[in-house]
Amino acid sequence: MDDSDMSVKEWEGDFDPLADPDEKQHLLSVLDSFRSYRRLAHFNGTHVRRQAFYSLPQEHWMMLSKPPFSILESLNKLDDLIDRNAELAEAIFMAGFKGFIAPTIDSEWVASIVPEKYARDEFRIYSIVMDHLKIQTTQNDMDKARSCINQFYRDWSTAGSVEREQCFGPVLRALDEEYTSRLQPTPDLEKSQIKVLVPGAGLGRSVFDICKAGYSVEGNEISYHELMASSLVLNHTEKAEQFTIAPFALNCSNHLSRADQFQTFAIPDIHPGSALATEMSSEDSAGERMSVSTGDFCILYSAPNYKAMFDAVTTIFFIDTAPNVIRYIEAVGNCLKEGGIWINLGPLLWHQAPRGPSGSGEGEGGHGHTHVRDAGIGDPGSVELTHDEVMALIERIGFKIEKQTTGMLETGYISNPRSMLQNIYRPVFWVARRV
Amino acid sequence: MDDSDMSVKEWEGDFDPLADPDEKQHLLSVLDSFRSYRRLAHFNGTHVRRQAFYSLPQEHWMMLSKPPFSILESLNKLDDLIDRNAELAEAIFMAGFKGFIAPTIDSEWVASIVPEKYARDEFRIYSIVMDHLKIQTTQNDMDKARSCINQFYRDWSTAGSVEREQCFGPVLRALDEEYTSRLQPTPDLEKSQIKVLVPGAGLGRSVFDICKAGYSVEGNEISYHELMASSLVLNHTEKAEQFTIAPFALNCSNHLSRADQFQTFAIPDIHPGSALATEMSSEDSAGERMSVSTGDFCILYSAPNYKAMFDAVTTIFFIDTAPNVIRYIEAVGNCLKEGGIWINLGPLLWHQAPRGPSGSGEGEGGHGHTHVRDAGIGDPGSVELTHDEVMALIERIGFKIEKQTTGMLETGYISNPRSMLQNIYRPVFWVARRV
Repeated sequence: MDDSDMSVKEWEGDFDPLADPDEKQHLLSVLDSFRSYRRLAHFNGTHVRRQAFYSLPQEHWMMLSKPPFSILESLNKLDDLIDRNAELAEAIFMAGFKGFIAPTIDSEWVASIVPEKYARDEFRIYSIVMDHLKIQTTQNDMDKARSCINQFYRDWSTAGSVEREQCFGPVLRALDEEYTSRLQPTPDLEKSQIKVLVPGAGLGRSVFDICKAGYSVEGNEISYHELMASSLVLNHTEKAEQFTIAPFALNCSNHLSRADQFQTFAIPDIHPGSALATEMSSEDSAGERMSVSTGDFCILYSAPNYKAMFDAVTTIFFIDTAPNVIRYIEAVGNCLKEGGIWINLGPLLWHQAPRGPSGSGEGEGGHGHTHVRDAGIGDPGSVELTHDEVMALIERIGFKIEKQTTGMLETGYISNPRSMLQNIYRPVFWVARRV
Repeated sequence: MDDSDMSVKEWEGDFDPLADPDEKQHLLSVLDSFRSYRRLAHFNGTHVRRQAFYSLPQEHWMMLSKPPFSILESLNKLDDLIDRNAELAEAIFMAGFKGFIAPTIDSEWVASIVPEKYARDEFRIYSIVMDHLKIQTTQNDMDKARSCINQFYRDWSTAGSVEREQCFGPVLRALDEEYTSRLQPTPDLEKSQIKVLVPGAGLGRSVFDICKAGYSVEGNEISYHELMASSLVLNHTEKAEQFTIAPFALNCSNHLSRADQFQTFAIPDIHPGSALATEMSSEDSAGERMSVSTGDFCILYSAPNYKAMFDAVTTIFFIDTAPNVIRYIEAVGNCLKEGGIWINLGPLLWHQAPRGPSGSGEGEGGHGHTHVRDAGIGDPGSVELTHDEVMALIERIGFKIEKQTTGMLETGYISNPRSMLQNIYRPVFWVARRV
């Protein structure tokens, strides 16, 4: 094993998850959820279904085993697709392990527990270490790992561009309008001088797209699932279409045909490394114009060191992760320069159930998955506002609403367009200026 | 208390739920879930939210208490709307208690436990009896009671006619086409001679509409929630618009305004009793042309006494309640006459998680609620088919597909058209003839 390989450290900031035992436990559970994807998906996706199938009356399952039904062949096909998804999950596990855990582990100890024959099998080595650490992932983390894999369809497949255009398109156009209007008084302004913050960066696609458009951009994310997955795609993929995923395969409802269920998509549609190296119009290197910070949005960006740091903040399907949206508004107000703009697009699917003094509320929903593990700064209390109340609040706290549309946009969220059930969001879109 | 009032018995068939202790326990739990609606909705809907609200930083909740936010006023308004919903829930409880429980209870015992001052308060009397029976409803039954109240929006409000037209409209038109085509060889055929079966009758609206259109119709339903609620609206309402419900009030997400959240709807849009008494074109009385059977669809309609009893079977959002859809197809095949038609409209949101030999699978989904408590005849095994597999199976088992459309229909299911999240079904529609 190459030690230098294990010293990669791409997460920025002062955040050290391994300093806190609970945090370390959580991080290991997330890693284990990606490592366990293959085993659990085979168990829940096909093993349980085969059991249920063979429990049908014999004449029924025998008929359904033959064409045109061939249910057992479909389950074999589903096994193959689970393996494709698992390749991505395990790549995330390995990159995450290398980034977070490997640098902290004594390599002699590793050598002592890994049999010689596995010395060149990275996955096996990390997996043996995980076994020795006696990690047991949680149901919640396994659910998030599964959502995270499917989310690559939205963020990093060619077909996902339909959903991305609906959500990122209006935001990028608003950024470009802002840049154009700033060119009037300052004709020498470079796009790279516009500093953009993207809270809830997720798998990093909007961060990447904003960087690719020429701006300087900082993403922020708190979820280890998202951080590890975005790190893989941004930093550790070798080429476009390196992976293949089947995001709809594990759901057996509402399909017109098996072909619909078993659709596959190449991931990523574009190789971030090459794209950022070659397609830059700016003279700055893309690497310097793009970063991702790790940690709690409210804590980080309410701090004095972030005061008036950004020209723009873009929030996409994000503000409803707040138990107390006032905290989010205050944080945006703090880190945005006077005259800077806040561009928002999303619904108001409040993620946190009402939280009383105990602060023990659990998340209610999420956009097909949950963006953040613990949104907000963890203080008690929550409130669920309507769109017009959010608008009034933003004006109250120090913004001027410059643009606002409701009922104009429609978008799925990791949605199979051929399904008999479509969960369609009608997100609101608005632009507010810090006064 | 009037004893004769307690002897109402409108449920048909040999089914006696009180003979089986488990069944009796379940029935009482369902009754209790309607009785508890008011208390639990106030607790979860407003009490918990007020707690969470006052747990916000004081300057935050003080600002949000004043206009234009007035969150505390909104919570008071929500309390009022919960009380409106509860009036319907308690009416269902009382009608259900009268129909199922009252006839079995010794009236002297009741007199001995009810204080004199409550002797004229029906709800109080039944409630005291429930307390003495030490009934404790379950979370699952409470969820179903809540869904059941909201379902009145779809089935029995004027606004719900949009969803009904999408789902019942094509089915009624197919019935009328069948009647018209049968008039050619038999010009004297009366609509009332066409016998229609409606499995999964739910709140009884499609049964009512088919009866109102002139056909003879039998509904079937297994869920006590649905049976009690449909019995209330069909047999015990006094007039149109007797109740008012707020089906979207308890969900605080994805609203543009509080007015959207707090929309109310008058229930029922039409008084079934009057409509059936006066609007009949047929000479038969409507009461004789309409009935609802109680019990398991597969068991009842696979039996020899139901062989070739119906000219048409209509299934709307129903066949995906089957763990083993072959059983449903066989039951339809048994009770349909040769040459009779099966009209189906719905998605394939398979309600049962895969069930192995233990048969312990739990429901995965449901159309915003679950139609049936235990679909199918409870034997083990399950399979989730695609639409084209269902079509092939139906042809295999003895039907000829005469009409089939996919991707043409779109409908919500208890959907707030002003919400920022729309769950849109694209149901398939087909007509198959028994050969």
